[in-house]
Amino acid sequence: MSTLATKLREGLPDEAVLTDPDITASYAHDMASFCPAGTPAVVVLPRDVEQVRHVMRTATELRVPVVPQGARSGLSGAANATDGCVVLSLLRMDNIVEIDPVNRFAVVEPGVINADLAKAVAAHGLAYPPDPSSWEQCTIGGNIGTGSGGLCCVKYGVTAEYVLGLDVVLADGRLLRTGRRTAKGVAGYDLTRLFVGSEGTLGVVVGAVLALKPAPPPRLVLAAEFGSATAAGEAVARIMAEGHTPSLLELMDTTTIAAVNRLTRMGLPESTRALLLAAFDTADPAADLAAVGELCRDTGATEVVPAADDAESEMLLAARRSSLSALEAVKGTTMIDDVCVPRSRLAELLDGVEAIADRHRLTIGVVAHAGDGNTHPTVCFDSSDPDESGRARASFDEIMALGLELGGTITGEHGVGVLKREWLARELGPDSLELQRGIRRVFDPLGILNPGKVL
Amino acid sequence: MSTLATKLREGLPDEAVLTDPDITASYAHDMASFCPAGTPAVVVLPRDVEQVRHVMRTATELRVPVVPQGARSGLSGAANATDGCVVLSLLRMDNIVEIDPVNRFAVVEPGVINADLAKAVAAHGLAYPPDPSSWEQCTIGGNIGTGSGGLCCVKYGVTAEYVLGLDVVLADGRLLRTGRRTAKGVAGYDLTRLFVGSEGTLGVVVGAVLALKPAPPPRLVLAAEFGSATAAGEAVARIMAEGHTPSLLELMDTTTIAAVNRLTRMGLPESTRALLLAAFDTADPAADLAAVGELCRDTGATEVVPAADDAESEMLLAARRSSLSALEAVKGTTMIDDVCVPRSRLAELLDGVEAIADRHRLTIGVVAHAGDGNTHPTVCFDSSDPDESGRARASFDEIMALGLELGGTITGEHGVGVLKREWLARELGPDSLELQRGIRRVFDPLGILNPGKVL
Repeated sequence: MSTLATKLREGLPDEAVLTDPDITASYAHDMASFCPAGTPAVVVLPRDVEQVRHVMRTATELRVPVVPQGARSGLSGAANATDGCVVLSLLRMDNIVEIDPVNRFAVVEPGVINADLAKAVAAHGLAYPPDPSSWEQCTIGGNIGTGSGGLCCVKYGVTAEYVLGLDVVLADGRLLRTGRRTAKGVAGYDLTRLFVGSEGTLGVVVGAVLALKPAPPPRLVLAAEFGSATAAGEAVARIMAEGHTPSLLELMDTTTIAAVNRLTRMGLPESTRALLLAAFDTADPAADLAAVGELCRDTGATEVVPAADDAESEMLLAARRSSLSALEAVKGTTMIDDVCVPRSRLAELLDGVEAIADRHRLTIGVVAHAGDGNTHPTVCFDSSDPDESGRARASFDEIMALGLELGGTITGEHGVGVLKREWLARELGPDSLELQRGIRRVFDPLGILNPGKVL
Repeated sequence: MSTLATKLREGLPDEAVLTDPDITASYAHDMASFCPAGTPAVVVLPRDVEQVRHVMRTATELRVPVVPQGARSGLSGAANATDGCVVLSLLRMDNIVEIDPVNRFAVVEPGVINADLAKAVAAHGLAYPPDPSSWEQCTIGGNIGTGSGGLCCVKYGVTAEYVLGLDVVLADGRLLRTGRRTAKGVAGYDLTRLFVGSEGTLGVVVGAVLALKPAPPPRLVLAAEFGSATAAGEAVARIMAEGHTPSLLELMDTTTIAAVNRLTRMGLPESTRALLLAAFDTADPAADLAAVGELCRDTGATEVVPAADDAESEMLLAARRSSLSALEAVKGTTMIDDVCVPRSRLAELLDGVEAIADRHRLTIGVVAHAGDGNTHPTVCFDSSDPDESGRARASFDEIMALGLELGGTITGEHGVGVLKREWLARELGPDSLELQRGIRRVFDPLGILNPGKVL
């Protein structure tokens, strides 16, 4: 057995140190396309903080790279193995340690599944709002690592806004506690926020104090169909400019609508160029639906369908929920982008993506968290066709360039990982990059934490 | 004329470079007690980014410390001069550059007064929620530097949550842009958040993109009187545990009530041990007032006074607004602490502060953002009496120790500055401190940015 595995077993049970290449290979990558993954030397599955500390002490001693991992549902390759690394899976550290309704926080281990936390706090009349589409698989640790978003962010904000404090194992095995359990706190630099979105490059998150909100009232959903991206974009702009607070404001383009119809036989109107879904969980959601419905008609909606109850609301959302699997079914493989633009530029982005798809003879469906200007142009391609794969890759770069051109960012919520590392440099520029690399060296002087990711 | 002033005048108009010691002395300190201040060599008042860059280039060239300054309303000495420094006042950079209702952000220069921004965005049906008590004097740059809070945070959060992006002049004069103008974004480490609360030790904020919210409906206020801190603390805990969302939840103790009566002749009931003020800006605030009033009676309120309209609401808040001047009038000088504890420990903190006041024969009034567990124990003393000043200082340390003991932080919203530097080390511990110092060196390798502050 290798020195590495032997040393790891000195502080971990045998069954928590996997070395069988057939098994470790299955931990090699997340769900991103076009991201190279190396071969891990070992996969470890610690159950507590001391075991994680042992892993990091060993990695420091042997100068071995460590790749922290959650559910591997990420879309940027941030959890991909590098050759000879230790994959540090936090999946077995999945306890919800505490739920405190007075102080409105939960204390959790990193392997807790997002949906499990949502259910657990709901039993106390509370909500943990961040809801990535993968919420039934993804872990809180992964959410923190990528700084993930979701559908409710337009009203409730992203993961970062809910992380009050962290327990982090540093590169050399020291245990750091950041942040607080209080509603406010400004003692020193905000290390907590620095870890959020750092994709395991600054330390290994082994515990989190998360802010909770009171559970909102039941929501109602409205669907509105538009004949152009411009009209739908105008509706989004007016909804926000007029002070409405939807708890969800999603958009599906015509390509996505057609894909959903093929997969589900929902019979959505394929003449529609953009389908907008708005939800309200306010005190009087029916009144909000009426006002927003009127506004959608004003901006040219061809059809407006307000739900009368929860069952109808869920039916309207079903199309959105099946979007990504529907797009995946088109050609077998998808590559999901994540550009976020000011919401006033949404229509320009949609039209631009359509032009890119035409130019490259590709099917690109767009689903968007429209209220945030956060779009997921999803390139559908046959990965066994090298020419189409090449065109898919090229279109992806053009979409990011378009996002930056419109005053946006290359990643709204999926993170940088391997996939967008080169583009990160273009967005940030050399000064920011230099400072960020300097910060990284402060936390990881030996360069063993998730090397090759982010920057 | 000194080399420093001569070089500064090469990039700044003469009238923007002050060297008269009588004048520069008036820029030497903020509003904190017990914080030493040095004698500035020069005060500069730039009007634009290029002038700030010139100041930092000059300071780097000559290795001269720079102390960035806003309105000097801070309470921790973070804006205090060090001997021979350049005081860099941002007061003349006070333009509101842009207000964007669709994307719900404002772009501002750092010298904009908080209240001026609030009024300007209100004209667009928008709100900039963070509202420090000093909102009519303090600047946005100062708010960002200290990571300041306010009265509405219990519902709307603190300054940090509203800063989307920053323009920062670095120690060597380079201009860095951080963050974004979009609702979401996770491209790289969160440098924006790192600057918030860094008190000018990492760079000079010369511009900010701030998130805005739709203006809320008019609020109604309720006052409730309690016979003990325990009863008031219990009411706060139940209000939050039962899912209410007050937009303000403030507390005044009996010492503060007496001081307000002396200053204003408001005739508040001095038998009351704790006066709780709750505001709601919900769709139906009268209903919330009724529910919370009932709950206060349940937990032992001796009197509950719900306001029927805006005028009555403002009358109830008047007592809170005059608290700090009332406490200042007691003995001439106050020292305002800022410990924040989990809100479930609020009563313990109040009782503990009372015991400390008794032990040191001091008058300590407590006003608190009760919903956040953020208290401002305010020590009233005669600064010409060395014995009383000594006891004031001692009590201050004991209050911070108590805050930490109760699971809290030494500063909820006022920052560290000079005043709490020593205590910061106790709260953070050596590992966190070492990492934070490492980050500081990345941004300021020569140590010229606000030396002696924070850490």
